Amino acid sequence: MKKIGIVDTTFARFDMARSAIEELQAQGTGFTIERYTVPGIKDLPVAAKKLIEEKKCDIIMALGMPGGAAIDKQCSHEASMGLITVQLLTNTHIIEVFVHEDEAHDDTELAWLANQRTREHAHNVLHLLYNPRHLTKNAGMGLRQGFKDMGPVKK
Amino acid sequence: MKKIGIVDTTFARFDMARSAIEELQAQGTGFTIERYTVPGIKDLPVAAKKLIEEKKCDIIMALGMPGGAAIDKQCSHEASMGLITVQLLTNTHIIEVFVHEDEAHDDTELAWLANQRTREHAHNVLHLLYNPRHLTKNAGMGLRQGFKDMGPVKK
Amino acid sequence: MKKIGIVDTTFARFDMARSAIEELQAQGTGFTIERYTVPGIKDLPVAAKKLIEEKKCDIIMALGMPGGAAIDKQCSHEASMGLITVQLLTNTHIIEVFVHEDEAHDDTELAWLANQRTREHAHNVLHLLYNPRHLTKNAGMGLRQGFKDMGPVKK
Amino acid sequence: MKKIGIVDTTFARFDMARSAIEELQAQGTGFTIERYTVPGIKDLPVAAKKLIEEKKCDIIMALGMPGGAAIDKQCSHEASMGLITVQLLTNTHIIEVFVHEDEAHDDTELAWLANQRTREHAHNVLHLLYNPRHLTKNAGMGLRQGFKDMGPVKK
Amino acid sequence: MKKIGIVDTTFARFDMARSAIEELQAQGTGFTIERYTVPGIKDLPVAAKKLIEEKKCDIIMALGMPGGAAIDKQCSHEASMGLITVQLLTNTHIIEVFVHEDEAHDDTELAWLANQRTREHAHNVLHLLYNPRHLTKNAGMGLRQGFKDMGPVKK
Repeated sequence: MKKIGIVDTTFARFDMARSAIEELQAQGTGFTIERYTVPGIKDLPVAAKKLIEEKKCDIIMALGMPGGAAIDKQCSHEASMGLITVQLLTNTHIIEVFVHEDEAHDDTELAWLANQRTREHAHNVLHLLYNPRHLTKNAGMGLRQGFKDMGPVKK
Repeated sequence: MKKIGIVDTTFARFDMARSAIEELQAQGTGFTIERYTVPGIKDLPVAAKKLIEEKKCDIIMALGMPGGAAIDKQCSHEASMGLITVQLLTNTHIIEVFVHEDEAHDDTELAWLANQRTREHAHNVLHLLYNPRHLTKNAGMGLRQGFKDMGPVKK
Repeated sequence: MKKIGIVDTTFARFDMARSAIEELQAQGTGFTIERYTVPGIKDLPVAAKKLIEEKKCDIIMALGMPGGAAIDKQCSHEASMGLITVQLLTNTHIIEVFVHEDEAHDDTELAWLANQRTREHAHNVLHLLYNPRHLTKNAGMGLRQGFKDMGPVKK
Repeated sequence: MKKIGIVDTTFARFDMARSAIEELQAQGTGFTIERYTVPGIKDLPVAAKKLIEEKKCDIIMALGMPGGAAIDKQCSHEASMGLITVQLLTNTHIIEVFVHEDEAHDDTELAWLANQRTREHAHNVLHLLYNPRHLTKNAGMGLRQGFKDMGPVKK
Repeated sequence: MKKIGIVDTTFARFDMARSAIEELQAQGTGFTIERYTVPGIKDLPVAAKKLIEEKKCDIIMALGMPGGAAIDKQCSHEASMGLITVQLLTNTHIIEVFVHEDEAHDDTELAWLANQRTREHAHNVLHLLYNPRHLTKNAGMGLRQGFKDMGPVKK
């Protein structure tokens, strides 16, 4: 039985964890989910590490929604660096699902994007856990999560 | 009995630790507070680590007030990276409460913001310690500390 | 028997790993190849570390294609920092082959560049493994991978 | 008997270590000073670590004078990150005293600032070693080293 | 008998290692030199670490020539961060000699600068190894490597 950890924030403007949980559960069984909510994205790295080490999670989804200002970009950079460090300290994947507010034109699109990107990354989590060959089959295909795929380029 | 560590600076232009201590004590009992003041925000990471390792603090509030110039942004970035590293080395939360001088229009607003943000984050500290479910209940609600909440976006 | 690890992404718009494998195999024998595909470049560091530690790879090629926007540059920076950390934690070389979308004028050139740079770096991987003196012979020669060499400058 | 380490550079345009030593010695006794000069600020972190681990210093002053160009800002950022890492690896304070060339209007002011900031930080070093309560008494007072204090803001 | 490690690249447009070796050997005896060439500057950190740990080098010169574009600055930043990390993991100095292409007005000056800066830093390496007091004698003198010294500023 695998355990999937989900770390999310009260800062985000959309309940991305609900989307993640729904999508994961819709895809199958054979795993449990552990959720840990923190205030902001800079709190995510230690939460992820605690889920891995204290709750024995096999993989983590780190969900966040940075604002569009320069200081928010700095925060998201710091959070991302922390999440990479956690992965290297634990040899465990953390799929970072960050939706930047300035990626969307309005609140409706932002909600759509947060939901869609989270759900598509939930599939990546399951592929990494159960079916890594599926990712190799799609290597170099220009896949995106949320907005449409860019697709491959041809020689 | 839990122990809450507070690290703060002489550089800050507002005694944020006083706000933190008042708010924590107003919320309840069952914990002690350990305070450690350093000159500037880049001194906060090692102070936090010492409180965790030498004073056995269960959680830390890191309080700082970076200036508005480019070099100050660089310093706050370095401090934040250090605070994340401390969390990963100790599996302990550090709630960073930074108030950037350029967030406020004048000194009065700056004082208001420093006080308000610190007090709201004091609640986050207590939730993480005693009631993590409360944070999950507010996941994705677009909460902010200091200025008003952004609120959630709808699909 | 040496083992060469290749980590690549579904985000990339060209199957760089195929180029790497073809070129490595065209150059000789005496090694096996282990491939690990992840969603994006920020997932590469932990994948590389797992190939080194769990699959005993002797060297890694890390293949990615960051987009041209500011956020993509930030992601590539984070991935690169992670890849350097992995090298220092394992004393193992990781040859990073990143092709930035804005390096090419159009999709055709992008595909050409991804293929060409990967193949030229495959030679660097083999030199590091089997013939480090070859690199010393070319020290200071202004070599580039993909676009043409800059060449040396003269006193 | 405490030991205070001082790391400084040949790159700096002012002998900040002399100011530090004079000021420390003027303030009292009960400590020895160990000095270690390196070429540039990026050499400071390892020098500080060696003073702490090999010479058993209890605290370090890291003195540097970055230039005003973009590359110099990058170097000072790298040095600062290294100095924070050393602190976290050793649980020892390093008081960073950096004077940026572009902080001063001319060479005379630059010399004045380097001397003044170093001397004021020498007091911080002694407070951290012998009298941490003094810093807490000044928490939130908007203290600066070199140029005049900003002072506190009022609610 | 001391051992000096030199790491250099095929990316550089000048054989800086030759300058380093010539200058070191012209200065004296009592040491051996170990050279390790890698493709680019981001490969330098792990090469330096391997020279220190596997070849028992006492000090390292890290030689590189980053290009002038924004992406090159990012690469040099990543390499520098890695080189600092290696120093902290090994308590060993690495003298970074980077010559940025945009520091010179033309190829001739670039070659001159690469040669000159490397040779002057070779002296720093020998001072750190054999005569650290010489550096202290020059503390605060505004020394530069390559271009002319800035000199000290006066109070």
